[in-house]
Amino acid sequence: GVDKKILVIPGDGIGQEVTAWGQKVLMAIAQNYHHTFTFEEGIMGHVAIEATGNPLPDETLEKARRSDAILFGAIGHAKYDNDPTLKVRPEQGLLKIRKELGLYANLRPIKLFDELLEASSIKPEILRGADILFFRELTGDVYFGEKIRTADRNTASDLMIYHRYEVERIARKAYEAARTRRKKLCSVDKANVLEASRLWREVVQEVAKEYPDVETEHMFIDNAAMQLIKDPKRFDVVVTGNLFGDILTDEASQIAGSMGMLASASVGDSTGFYEPIHGSAHDIAGKGIANPLASILSAALLLDISFGLKTESQRVIKAVEATLKQGFRTMDIANKHTVNDCIMGTDAMGAKVLENLN
Amino acid sequence: GVDKKILVIPGDGIGQEVTAWGQKVLMAIAQNYHHTFTFEEGIMGHVAIEATGNPLPDETLEKARRSDAILFGAIGHAKYDNDPTLKVRPEQGLLKIRKELGLYANLRPIKLFDELLEASSIKPEILRGADILFFRELTGDVYFGEKIRTADRNTASDLMIYHRYEVERIARKAYEAARTRRKKLCSVDKANVLEASRLWREVVQEVAKEYPDVETEHMFIDNAAMQLIKDPKRFDVVVTGNLFGDILTDEASQIAGSMGMLASASVGDSTGFYEPIHGSAHDIAGKGIANPLASILSAALLLDISFGLKTESQRVIKAVEATLKQGFRTMDIANKHTVNDCIMGTDAMGAKVLENLN
Ligand SMILES: CC(C)[C@H](C(=O)O)[C@@H](O)C(=O)O
Ligand SMILES: CC(C)[C@H](C(=O)O)[C@@H](O)C(=O)O
Repeated sequence: GVDKKILVIPGDGIGQEVTAWGQKVLMAIAQNYHHTFTFEEGIMGHVAIEATGNPLPDETLEKARRSDAILFGAIGHAKYDNDPTLKVRPEQGLLKIRKELGLYANLRPIKLFDELLEASSIKPEILRGADILFFRELTGDVYFGEKIRTADRNTASDLMIYHRYEVERIARKAYEAARTRRKKLCSVDKANVLEASRLWREVVQEVAKEYPDVETEHMFIDNAAMQLIKDPKRFDVVVTGNLFGDILTDEASQIAGSMGMLASASVGDSTGFYEPIHGSAHDIAGKGIANPLASILSAALLLDISFGLKTESQRVIKAVEATLKQGFRTMDIANKHTVNDCIMGTDAMGAKVLENLN
Repeated sequence: GVDKKILVIPGDGIGQEVTAWGQKVLMAIAQNYHHTFTFEEGIMGHVAIEATGNPLPDETLEKARRSDAILFGAIGHAKYDNDPTLKVRPEQGLLKIRKELGLYANLRPIKLFDELLEASSIKPEILRGADILFFRELTGDVYFGEKIRTADRNTASDLMIYHRYEVERIARKAYEAARTRRKKLCSVDKANVLEASRLWREVVQEVAKEYPDVETEHMFIDNAAMQLIKDPKRFDVVVTGNLFGDILTDEASQIAGSMGMLASASVGDSTGFYEPIHGSAHDIAGKGIANPLASILSAALLLDISFGLKTESQRVIKAVEATLKQGFRTMDIANKHTVNDCIMGTDAMGAKVLENLN
């Protein structure tokens, strides 16, 4: 068995409720497969601001650096959303840890479990067979460019900026993945308007030459946002910048039935970072109704990508599948049109997955 | 009857094919209702670059300034999309005319004709009753901020920037419209990450105080891109920046069955500018299969908003409705699951609408 250190950062809102289940699944896997996983816990986001004044305390960052992988929950709080003038904000913690750990590639696999074919607002015949792997660039773009507010507070700006090497490395990662899949890559930008996008397109065109076996397509973000809903099956690997990736992958959650199903892996120079795509969802936080499957599937990604434990990872995915087959659902993935589903809360759902792991 | 000058700019690709039908509908309305519409034609985009080297020749701009309204087609050409290094680009013409004419508010109504309930990839029960009016800010944001490419060509940037007055005036327009509708306004931004969005949110919160009768909601763009597909009926008026508006309204075309159905009005200081939401679609250009209804519905918006001719505008919409009721469809809105539709090309479809006008 392997011996690994995992940092768990539940973060804010439903992050607290669902991450516990990602961790429990990792513990069960360790036991079943005779691995040693040592867990530490760290704080980040609103909870960290409340405790220390800092959305990413140094202590959490140190723990992160000495861990082999990180399981994260979610970040954000209504207080800050309602008051845009607040200077210290939870999201700064997440952006900082991404930057500090060099997590430049955010992988977001979008795949529908057969059992959820009816849970989406999109027609089943459009969805059946859709299987997309997003590569979202995660440490550049308008997220990290200089932010300015003039002294009179009447003008505000953010710099959307990309460097050649940033585009190159994420493009390569995406092409490598496309090679192991259906060999199609779609790069999304707004090159008809933005200079940063024109650089993006130039670089992807160059990298494409190294992968003649992969079919490359370039698409404008507005068109991509439309095609994703119109015909999701046309996509295999999608590579795009930080902002466009943020938007497209949230939108794509409708292809997977619900945001509550989607996991993501952020990788780069060292430690991998795993988190659900969903946010802190303060409207349902504390009610015990959040879907724990995205956190559990994030744990599955962690096992696969950071630890190379493919069998264990597949075991987790199969347990989720089995749970759905048994008809168990959280509210977000309940099918309003059948009476066969059994709707349950976070803990009951998590417990069912654990049962199916054994 | 009224006496008005209309500038027609077909532009590129299918713009050439569909705009002819928007114009023919305007001519028919003039005749039926005893108005005098005088038409001029102008060039813009790729066709203008080919003819003059300039995507927006001064002559076109002068014609625009002396017209009472402008009917536009589409812009763009594969040549430029494939070569991001080209300096002179068709889209510069469109961006320049928007800026020069002060067209800061882009209205994009999204409403499904009952007959197209099955044409969308989204389930009919999710769509039925959806009716959204987008206000997209059109002369600011990362579209118009400074663009830089370093001398070594390895770094590229665009400035995402907003000024208080820009947000204020579009917010007011959106609130005024919300008052005449279901009194709900959703403002979309990314205030948890972007300074420009924080200014946006602050200003909308201030303007909101003048409209206590309208219910205001703030939503992050990633969430909005998801909610739009999950539950389009929750939206009434949506107001957002230039880039987010570009993305969301293209995505929203799936709510209307097809991009080929959507018209838009750009208004501001003076002359109104009317155009389909769809682009030049070079993949189908010249084939005579493009849907002319977006251009025809743009003409309807023109009659209503620029000329105040509500009866005439409604007459056009009714003619489109009647055409759909008769089962006539262009390819993009054909229902693959029934055999009752009669699929036709651009000109046959346009002719049917004209017949229904009389
Ligand atoms: C919370 C926020 C800063 C974050 C982002 O925009 O990156 C989130 O939406 C995500 O997608 O991980
Ligand atoms: C052609 C392009 C510049 C334009 C835009 O992005 O504004 C188009 O997509 C639109 O929505 O009108």
